[in-house]
Amino acid sequence: MNIVSVFVPGSIGNVGPGLDVLGLAVRGAGDTATIERTADRRIVVDEPGDPSLPSDPARHTTALAARAALALAGRKGRIGLRIRLRKGLPLSGGQGGSAASAVAGAVAANVLMGSPLGTDELLAAALEAEATVAGRHLDNIAPSLLGGLVLIRSLDPIDVVPLSVPRGLQIVLAKPDYEMRTREARSALPNTISRATALHQAAQVAAMVAGAAQGNLALFGRAIDDRIAEPARAGLLPGFSEAKRAALRAGALGCSISGSGPTLFAVADRRATAIRIGAAVARAYRRAGYATTIRVTTPDVQGARIRP
Amino acid sequence: MNIVSVFVPGSIGNVGPGLDVLGLAVRGAGDTATIERTADRRIVVDEPGDPSLPSDPARHTTALAARAALALAGRKGRIGLRIRLRKGLPLSGGQGGSAASAVAGAVAANVLMGSPLGTDELLAAALEAEATVAGRHLDNIAPSLLGGLVLIRSLDPIDVVPLSVPRGLQIVLAKPDYEMRTREARSALPNTISRATALHQAAQVAAMVAGAAQGNLALFGRAIDDRIAEPARAGLLPGFSEAKRAALRAGALGCSISGSGPTLFAVADRRATAIRIGAAVARAYRRAGYATTIRVTTPDVQGARIRP
Repeated sequence: MNIVSVFVPGSIGNVGPGLDVLGLAVRGAGDTATIERTADRRIVVDEPGDPSLPSDPARHTTALAARAALALAGRKGRIGLRIRLRKGLPLSGGQGGSAASAVAGAVAANVLMGSPLGTDELLAAALEAEATVAGRHLDNIAPSLLGGLVLIRSLDPIDVVPLSVPRGLQIVLAKPDYEMRTREARSALPNTISRATALHQAAQVAAMVAGAAQGNLALFGRAIDDRIAEPARAGLLPGFSEAKRAALRAGALGCSISGSGPTLFAVADRRATAIRIGAAVARAYRRAGYATTIRVTTPDVQGARIRP
Repeated sequence: MNIVSVFVPGSIGNVGPGLDVLGLAVRGAGDTATIERTADRRIVVDEPGDPSLPSDPARHTTALAARAALALAGRKGRIGLRIRLRKGLPLSGGQGGSAASAVAGAVAANVLMGSPLGTDELLAAALEAEATVAGRHLDNIAPSLLGGLVLIRSLDPIDVVPLSVPRGLQIVLAKPDYEMRTREARSALPNTISRATALHQAAQVAAMVAGAAQGNLALFGRAIDDRIAEPARAGLLPGFSEAKRAALRAGALGCSISGSGPTLFAVADRRATAIRIGAAVARAYRRAGYATTIRVTTPDVQGARIRP
């Protein structure tokens, strides 16, 4: 195979209290990398996916991940790649766009080499790219690659735990029409945390895992009670607090910031409720002066896949 | 019924990283309260369970919990109780002894009233007693009452989540012959925690829940990686660090402090391994100058029960 297209779904990172450690792939929008193997041993970005993204392969996340994949397979400098990226995910949206672009690069490069790399190596390759452009986190990369809900137990060594996806889970994503840089959102986080808050947060992440394992959506939802990132970031996200209140009033089981924002996510147990939540959230943002893009969706349980 | 005996198993509180939020009931030793309903409307402690325990019902955990149970049922001052406690759990051992004594008082008082109280009220009654003598925590009370592995999602309001108990889990408890007061152990804890440590800890508690739900004992064990309480308390527990190393060398999947110590716990996937771990831990403590009481056991999935 000399050319391959890989589609990678977006994801909610930092799912509620699961800052840096819990991610959920979502159906619908995603990024697609089409990569061709070339004879000249260089990595070239032909189409960066967006005019604001760099064509420099040393700064483009798909190229960085592809290069890392070649390196992990011992093929760096021995294979040339021509990369075209089609972005379906918003830039700086908090929907795991940079991670999806990285995963697409790693997976496509691996396929073109005859798939010598396993899951942990693909994660490592995408992580290297993500660390360069957004921060060293796997909570978007791992669900984008594997699908579903994934816990990051450890980065060093990489230890990710695919979790049960609660049956019937409905997801609302609402992106107001402003941007939020991951690095800026990160610098708002507190460096130290009170013991009480840390223990509460740990219990919430664990309760989300238990709710998912037990198919208990109500528990999964009420455990979305983030006392570390959300209080620190909500103030940077105009309209978020009002929109969250509207989501909960409309029947959301839980609601928080997707990734580092500005996208808001909410969860529900019925599609009709999710649609109602989407409308309520859009109204709340509109009152605050912002248009929104609303998506009502479900978990993506497949993860990265080759496009025929 | 005018007299009832209630047996309550001991438990591991603070299971590994689950400080204050994760507890596991263990088979074998437990406390038994025998409570008789009397005509004189007073609560009397006839047998406190140990010469060092107070007979004053305002300071005895079984009496405090029984009184709280009467109050929650609107019967305080209208029913008299005569309490005899037989302690099977060590005092200040880190095996959930005070919680077990409290649960026994709450359950027995409830039975004598015709069982008007539900689970959350029994938890609340025992919590009131535990708060007086040991600290306001449910991580021993909830597993002692309900059996198995229990996550404490929230104290206010009370929200406890019974979890899957991983099949085949073997538990080693090793109590060196010195004591550790819960309050002293608590004062050793840091009041603030770095963000990185807090997030790591949250991921470990969540990974333990995932390991339990998936029957993955290796994951359950390697997630026993407590970077908050264990580093703060290990120095107060002579021989602990050497004993932990010995446990891991002997095949333990994970090892940490039970409750606030001094009891060490370790987990394994086979009984033969657990027995070997027990012997290795005993040797390590002996080298440090301490005799130990070793128990090789399994989870108690029943919790509090009436003795015929």
